[in-house]
Amino acid sequence: MHITICFPGPKPLGWLAGFQAALPNVEFSIWSQGETPMADYAVVWSPPQALIDEQVQLKALFNIGAGVDGILKLSLPPDLKVVRLDDAGMSVQMAEFVCHAVIRHFREFDQVEAAMQRGEWAFRKPLLRRDFPVGVMGLGVLGTRVAKALQSFEFPVLGWSRSAKTIDGVHCHHGDEGFKDFLAGTRVLVNLLPLTAETENILNRETLAQLMPGGYVINVARGAHLVDEDLLALLDSGHLAGAALDVFREEPLPKEHAFWAHPKLQLTPHTSARTLRDETIEQIASKIRALESGQAIAGVVDATRGY
Amino acid sequence: MHITICFPGPKPLGWLAGFQAALPNVEFSIWSQGETPMADYAVVWSPPQALIDEQVQLKALFNIGAGVDGILKLSLPPDLKVVRLDDAGMSVQMAEFVCHAVIRHFREFDQVEAAMQRGEWAFRKPLLRRDFPVGVMGLGVLGTRVAKALQSFEFPVLGWSRSAKTIDGVHCHHGDEGFKDFLAGTRVLVNLLPLTAETENILNRETLAQLMPGGYVINVARGAHLVDEDLLALLDSGHLAGAALDVFREEPLPKEHAFWAHPKLQLTPHTSARTLRDETIEQIASKIRALESGQAIAGVVDATRGY
Repeated sequence: MHITICFPGPKPLGWLAGFQAALPNVEFSIWSQGETPMADYAVVWSPPQALIDEQVQLKALFNIGAGVDGILKLSLPPDLKVVRLDDAGMSVQMAEFVCHAVIRHFREFDQVEAAMQRGEWAFRKPLLRRDFPVGVMGLGVLGTRVAKALQSFEFPVLGWSRSAKTIDGVHCHHGDEGFKDFLAGTRVLVNLLPLTAETENILNRETLAQLMPGGYVINVARGAHLVDEDLLALLDSGHLAGAALDVFREEPLPKEHAFWAHPKLQLTPHTSARTLRDETIEQIASKIRALESGQAIAGVVDATRGY
Repeated sequence: MHITICFPGPKPLGWLAGFQAALPNVEFSIWSQGETPMADYAVVWSPPQALIDEQVQLKALFNIGAGVDGILKLSLPPDLKVVRLDDAGMSVQMAEFVCHAVIRHFREFDQVEAAMQRGEWAFRKPLLRRDFPVGVMGLGVLGTRVAKALQSFEFPVLGWSRSAKTIDGVHCHHGDEGFKDFLAGTRVLVNLLPLTAETENILNRETLAQLMPGGYVINVARGAHLVDEDLLALLDSGHLAGAALDVFREEPLPKEHAFWAHPKLQLTPHTSARTLRDETIEQIASKIRALESGQAIAGVVDATRGY
């Protein structure tokens, strides 16, 4: 068996060593155009079309992240399995990232700390959590974990997904017909949708304007979900109080982008839920073992649905 | 029945109105030295000795906070019940305050944001949560809630209390004999102890030096638990990475205090868990009704123990 690894950037020697230790009887390569033997499996992040075109014997493509939009935009053979990462330590990171952002906004910690830094002992009247319903878009592994974590801090939590879902204590909406009520009931919006043709640009002037006044947007999914200029317009009109953005249409965020200097934005460099090498190698290795012994595996992407 | 209210600062007219609505057949006053009739109950925060000396018919003193050190330092008649606030919306605030501080430190958000503010797209290698065991001192209502919230983010959690406690999944230590092991296993220390003669100055050079290297201190209990100059010395030596301080020996923190300008400190103005008026009035009113009908109530302080 041969497995090839293809990530952007410098040679992933740590990943190679980890995979060799996990699957000792397998040959590995770091993919290089025109030089790599025919592989049975590929482990990838943002692979080029050339890998797909060359590696015609692949049985499955393993993505080292949860979002597979970077793979599904390629032209793929119809029978090639695309496998996304299931959790592997990402959902807890996402829960902590989102809870941190929600608590920081709700408790007004930025304002409190700014006052303290000016040497002012800043009394502020406590806000009420019933006035801060949090709406989670996307109720897969990550969204469900995030919704439950927010519930544990007693925020009212709403959910929205493509198909109907049920989560105890979460007011779940779904589909086009449920979107309006979801938005109208949400003050803090958390986006965890997969990026598909249907969800691209879903956070735009029309939808964001339907949030409760003083709305706050936390985008931890993909930059292309959000229409940047529409967010800026609603921040500047005062309808939105702010946003925490971890993902951007172009990453790294271009130097000249208006987001950099905006005082109502908190920016992080696509760091909300990082791929953890050890957990990821363990998960992919065990899925390859399962496939080789004819068992079904979790995380196989439905290409028509897009996730 | 007469109930008198005694808080520092401006007349608490909102509290008065709230109590009158909750207990409509009761007379209320805002306590004023030499002018208030003999009351059956007093609702207090940091009351003066004069109130105790004058109000000789009190059956119970209700504190509107969790910590009763401000009452127990007074000279009190031996049969006067001192009743602390049980939760009343404070434990969720404490959980969110502490989780926010722990996540912020663990995820290095300050460093990430500082880089982003300089226009740098800042890649940092993810840290591992197994390297950040969090130790919670004080396992009452607040400490238990905080420990469970930290567990939900998969941090290793240790606990320490005066007497033995058991919390699922938390490595609980107790008493003098358990303190050394607790400190040695802790990287992020959360102080939620009551302030008593035994716990005053408990966070000092000797104890804080026993934390794991790169230790971080979150003090959300009382300023007098911490020896300020010992914390500063260990921050400056590099043994401690930082601290989040919400409480201080003198509040507001005096203008000239060295904490204000220290780059490794995050300061907040005693805001971790605020008394919520509606919840507090409801709880105290229902305890007064219970006492009047001869029932036992929760939250009666053991003066010899100090909490």
